[in-house]
Amino acid sequence: MKASLIIIGNEILSGRTQDKNLSYLANWLNEIGIQLAEVRVIRDEEEIVVETVNYLRSTYDYVFTTGGIGPTHDDITSLCIAKAFGVELEINSGALGILKEYYKDGELTDARMKMTKMPVGSELIENPVSRAPGFKMDNVFVLAGIPSIMQGMLEGARKHLTVGEVVRSKSIDVFTPESNVADALTDLQNKYSEVEIGSYPFNKDNRFGTSVVMRSSDETKLKNCESELKELMKNYDTKY
Amino acid sequence: MKASLIIIGNEILSGRTQDKNLSYLANWLNEIGIQLAEVRVIRDEEEIVVETVNYLRSTYDYVFTTGGIGPTHDDITSLCIAKAFGVELEINSGALGILKEYYKDGELTDARMKMTKMPVGSELIENPVSRAPGFKMDNVFVLAGIPSIMQGMLEGARKHLTVGEVVRSKSIDVFTPESNVADALTDLQNKYSEVEIGSYPFNKDNRFGTSVVMRSSDETKLKNCESELKELMKNYDTKY
Repeated sequence: MKASLIIIGNEILSGRTQDKNLSYLANWLNEIGIQLAEVRVIRDEEEIVVETVNYLRSTYDYVFTTGGIGPTHDDITSLCIAKAFGVELEINSGALGILKEYYKDGELTDARMKMTKMPVGSELIENPVSRAPGFKMDNVFVLAGIPSIMQGMLEGARKHLTVGEVVRSKSIDVFTPESNVADALTDLQNKYSEVEIGSYPFNKDNRFGTSVVMRSSDETKLKNCESELKELMKNYDTKY
Repeated sequence: MKASLIIIGNEILSGRTQDKNLSYLANWLNEIGIQLAEVRVIRDEEEIVVETVNYLRSTYDYVFTTGGIGPTHDDITSLCIAKAFGVELEINSGALGILKEYYKDGELTDARMKMTKMPVGSELIENPVSRAPGFKMDNVFVLAGIPSIMQGMLEGARKHLTVGEVVRSKSIDVFTPESNVADALTDLQNKYSEVEIGSYPFNKDNRFGTSVVMRSSDETKLKNCESELKELMKNYDTKY
């Protein structure tokens, strides 16, 4: 099972805001056996949002979007999802019920009513944090951009997801430059084709080193690969 | 002038590593009048890297890539760039000279030699941190993934970039939910079409609020827009 994430928002692309949803979603999906295979960060412009949604929803099992479902003029995600699916936006009666309960009489202004409008055919995704819900349209999950709210909505999205084979990982930090261990890692990767071996250089406390990460859904092969790696690295300072 | 960034690396998509290059590059480009318009985070698989590079280099003025230019088996970026441009990989004499100077006799192993191989026609981009250089191929800038090295390489990339109109920004934090200011912001955006007004909800010290960000290359319009916004928000607690 493979998923993609579309981060919609000029504030990420301007460098003003550091995205926190990518790594959270990646780890969350990983635990239920779904691989985050691609992420796109795009401007909140209708044409590009529509095009990106349509490409990714036909390419991956699931698409998640974050951002752009609030009450202001720059919140265009719901409209774009409707256009991507070729349907109209309508007031979702479930969403209306939730907001009517949350706001006092007279407080449900036009701006707030915008948050009840969803593409025809969508299913609500609950928002346990600030009430205004997200939604699911076919295999596309439309979530808020604020990390705490996005994380709350994910719990509601879970029941719609078919879980896959869980991928486990092991990692070893070796305190030597990558180029010293490159040949050994190539041999190990060739031997363990079912384990994905990644090598990532780091600089921790002014010491250069290499993080070796092994990932596989086959626990036995993962363990064997780890043992061999430990043996191969025994002459270096390492940390597990 | 518009640019895109391709973050190549399974370690970002697995959630193991938090990317730091996006926001740095965004801010750096912003200061020289280039807009970061799109970012893609992709797996280090040949087909998808080649396809992504080819799409983005024909769509934007500049493409930056980070990651995958080291000495290990999972470093496939240089090969992919060569394939995207339909040229061969060759030992770059400039890169070879740099590594020969850096490593003692006999230390320039096959794994390290991998870092001298670049697509035919590429120009070196210096690496002031750990020597092994990046390169530029037409409008594609191929940089390291480690933030400190990527940042050092950017300085070398600068002379190849045509700067654009610098976009300035102003922002105001208003301590009230977005939905209370949505109508005022819509009117303001309609009045100032040359200012991009973004509205971003936040939760700071347990207070919900709205960050309003105004961006424009026209300083006078930006100032006028800011003054009007301050006037509009005068009944709320605000922070500049």
